[in-house]
Amino acid sequence: MSEQTNDFTQWYLQTVQQAELMSYSPVRGSIIFRPDGFELWEHIQEEFNKFLRSEGIRNAYFPMLIPQHFFMKEADHIEGFAPELPWVTEVGNEKLEEPLALRPTSETMIGAAFSDWINSYRDLPYEINQWANVFRWEKKTLPFLRTSEFLWQEGHTAHADETDARQRTMRVLDEYARLCEEFLAIPVYKGQKTPSERFAGAVDTYSIEAMMKDGKAVQAGTSHYMGTKFAEAFDITYLNKENKHTLVHTTSWGVSTRLLGSLIMTHGDEQGLVLPPTVAATQVVLMPVGPWKKNPAILEKLEEIFAELKARNIRVRLDDSDNSPGYKFNEWELKGACVRVECGPRDLENGHAMVKVRDLAEKEKVDFEGLVAYIEEQLAEMTPRLLASAKARNKENEHFDINTLDELKAHIETCKAENKPTGFVLIGWDGTEETESKIKEETGFTTRNIPFEVPMEKATDLVSGKPAKHTLWIARAY
Amino acid sequence: MSEQTNDFTQWYLQTVQQAELMSYSPVRGSIIFRPDGFELWEHIQEEFNKFLRSEGIRNAYFPMLIPQHFFMKEADHIEGFAPELPWVTEVGNEKLEEPLALRPTSETMIGAAFSDWINSYRDLPYEINQWANVFRWEKKTLPFLRTSEFLWQEGHTAHADETDARQRTMRVLDEYARLCEEFLAIPVYKGQKTPSERFAGAVDTYSIEAMMKDGKAVQAGTSHYMGTKFAEAFDITYLNKENKHTLVHTTSWGVSTRLLGSLIMTHGDEQGLVLPPTVAATQVVLMPVGPWKKNPAILEKLEEIFAELKARNIRVRLDDSDNSPGYKFNEWELKGACVRVECGPRDLENGHAMVKVRDLAEKEKVDFEGLVAYIEEQLAEMTPRLLASAKARNKENEHFDINTLDELKAHIETCKAENKPTGFVLIGWDGTEETESKIKEETGFTTRNIPFEVPMEKATDLVSGKPAKHTLWIARAY
Repeated sequence: MSEQTNDFTQWYLQTVQQAELMSYSPVRGSIIFRPDGFELWEHIQEEFNKFLRSEGIRNAYFPMLIPQHFFMKEADHIEGFAPELPWVTEVGNEKLEEPLALRPTSETMIGAAFSDWINSYRDLPYEINQWANVFRWEKKTLPFLRTSEFLWQEGHTAHADETDARQRTMRVLDEYARLCEEFLAIPVYKGQKTPSERFAGAVDTYSIEAMMKDGKAVQAGTSHYMGTKFAEAFDITYLNKENKHTLVHTTSWGVSTRLLGSLIMTHGDEQGLVLPPTVAATQVVLMPVGPWKKNPAILEKLEEIFAELKARNIRVRLDDSDNSPGYKFNEWELKGACVRVECGPRDLENGHAMVKVRDLAEKEKVDFEGLVAYIEEQLAEMTPRLLASAKARNKENEHFDINTLDELKAHIETCKAENKPTGFVLIGWDGTEETESKIKEETGFTTRNIPFEVPMEKATDLVSGKPAKHTLWIARAY
Repeated sequence: MSEQTNDFTQWYLQTVQQAELMSYSPVRGSIIFRPDGFELWEHIQEEFNKFLRSEGIRNAYFPMLIPQHFFMKEADHIEGFAPELPWVTEVGNEKLEEPLALRPTSETMIGAAFSDWINSYRDLPYEINQWANVFRWEKKTLPFLRTSEFLWQEGHTAHADETDARQRTMRVLDEYARLCEEFLAIPVYKGQKTPSERFAGAVDTYSIEAMMKDGKAVQAGTSHYMGTKFAEAFDITYLNKENKHTLVHTTSWGVSTRLLGSLIMTHGDEQGLVLPPTVAATQVVLMPVGPWKKNPAILEKLEEIFAELKARNIRVRLDDSDNSPGYKFNEWELKGACVRVECGPRDLENGHAMVKVRDLAEKEKVDFEGLVAYIEEQLAEMTPRLLASAKARNKENEHFDINTLDELKAHIETCKAENKPTGFVLIGWDGTEETESKIKEETGFTTRNIPFEVPMEKATDLVSGKPAKHTLWIARAY
């Protein structure tokens, strides 16, 4: 396997395939989510569905194909998505009268439905979510992080006024941050996107940005306030208390299977996947070691532990294959099993097992008596520990003292020479697109977001040297 | 609302819309699954996922777009699906080199993956499921029952030999029957499809058929044994214990959102939906009646009951809107709430509530003390009672004494005159397609399946009068 520090992308590509998270498919840029990969997504779905239920936001399902004239209704929207849209033009051998787009997102389809369903202020807020496959024909693709077809949830809500709509936008962004940090152990940077990075058709776009181990950014989730733009395009109005037709304010927001890529690139190491127990398909793997076949009591003991763990809803596997212990260690480390329990003849004799937690350096000797409790404790501690460790690493890769384009270039050169991540750089910005394009052109860095909590105010624009209107994060990004 | 007995299809179309299960979409034959409709599907997913987990069959996700040359590999398969396939021919403004089909099913895509993943007998059985949207451009469409895009699960498995593969085929069919009967209260007829009704590319297709209230059939689920046909087409082989390359035997099986249509057409009545509590979005609705606004203790009491039911994971709603009791009764009956609890001033005074179970004729007076227990009991009893009642109705619409085409025509005439369902007719069949086409042409009846347990043997073919090789069910079908 490629070493992480030498070629992070190669390491990533090898790891996701060897750990059997995905396979390439015959369709350019579309991947197969193998069971161990798809299960990560299923756990994320389960967790986010809890939030939706607690907020009274219900799941629905809308058609995947969107008629061409629908897309045309919101000008910014079609302009933003047109180059990436796959079109169905024929069925059987017959040409369709109107081409149908494979949805890249469903504002238009859901906007039209809202127009039918929403009549009175009593119907508001109207809040819907859908789990779906979407299509964006990207030029450069990367498993999970950028694929032609991907899976996501898209929430769409309509509100009586701006305050209520903006509240929903922020509440969801907060939940995305919580989901990433507490559930996936991925630290995120919350903030607002610059106008040039807004969702096509949004008034304001907010994002959570995550820093990968190589210092590059992943936009891990976005939440948009649309104002009345889609309400105007799709005639979504309600009768207010004074019986007057009024435009609704809409929001939309989504996280996708990009999260899987972020998860792997945040925690993985030279041995392979490191997964928080919240989502790991295998939380515990039990394996007999030494000449265990001659001593059936070893397997019996492990089967007993297996049953106990199973009864506590722990995702446990027993590896009693013929492979050597070394092979098994490697395989389960590669696959990101959180806890490995080994038991050989001498262990059994002494009433203990050897326990190795994936992200800790040393094996521990643990008495059978306290084994299950020990495992539960380790599983509970692992997610917050992974988060803390990722946060500490991020801190090292945040840069606050780069004030000019030349300093940024020098920073990049130094990082290259020392084989270090370029990380997130906090800069001053005069608010112009010129600054953004110049930075992108000359360094490949892009604006990530204007953080809600600015670690320090920057006085001048990185490029123009003019007074800064905002302080924001820039980074290279996936 | 149309009366069920006068125009069942009209009743159905009005009910699914008025109960807010679905809306039409701007794409021909594609519907929107509204939250109350989609939730039915979510409960079915949850239930079937339990089965998958217990069998060790894991979920995965495969690309939706299938390259044209993939489809060509299995001749029967492409022949069967070609006329219904939507094709993506362009992306952005560029023509694709090879058209991509929107999957109608995924045997080809998954076959190719199996060819990569399966190497040795140790890998078998290899068993995968996917929940996905699929596309079949049908000429005539009907919400849930026949739509251009629908949702389903498709299981795909590969086995070392025929015996193992056939066992999987049957085991799933049994689970489908259990799911329909025990979970959805839909009685089904298990059996084998005739060759002309086989899945395109299958060696044998088995089905569960359900009888709707109007006597028409719905094919509610199918399970296929593919032999080695797809293994040959996609080169899926394994090294057996003697180190010889051997073709696997494959199966596939699916149930879809057709089940939602079956559910509604099996249980619904003049008032609207009747849903088993297993899937109902609203299991219990609480409502204050009489001059309740003057007496805040009524709402307080209902809120207390609400909290108690909620704590027991019962899906409960409290309707304290300003609508009249009559309006509320109608609305919640239309939507298929299983249990309605009313409480007015006199009820409160006397320490009881009035309880109406959706499929029982009379309201019951129930003391507050025993109310929660009573509701739980009613919810537990309702599903088996709905099943028993559907079974009893089916019995009335099974016909065993029709032995010639003329008798079948006379039966149809009588049913028409008396406004009765034509139901399922058990006939003798000589095994020829001629008989099947003749029956279809002249009566619109189609062969449903050859039941595993034949209620009685029929001696002669309905059309030819020749000795029957099989006894099978025929019916008009959705």
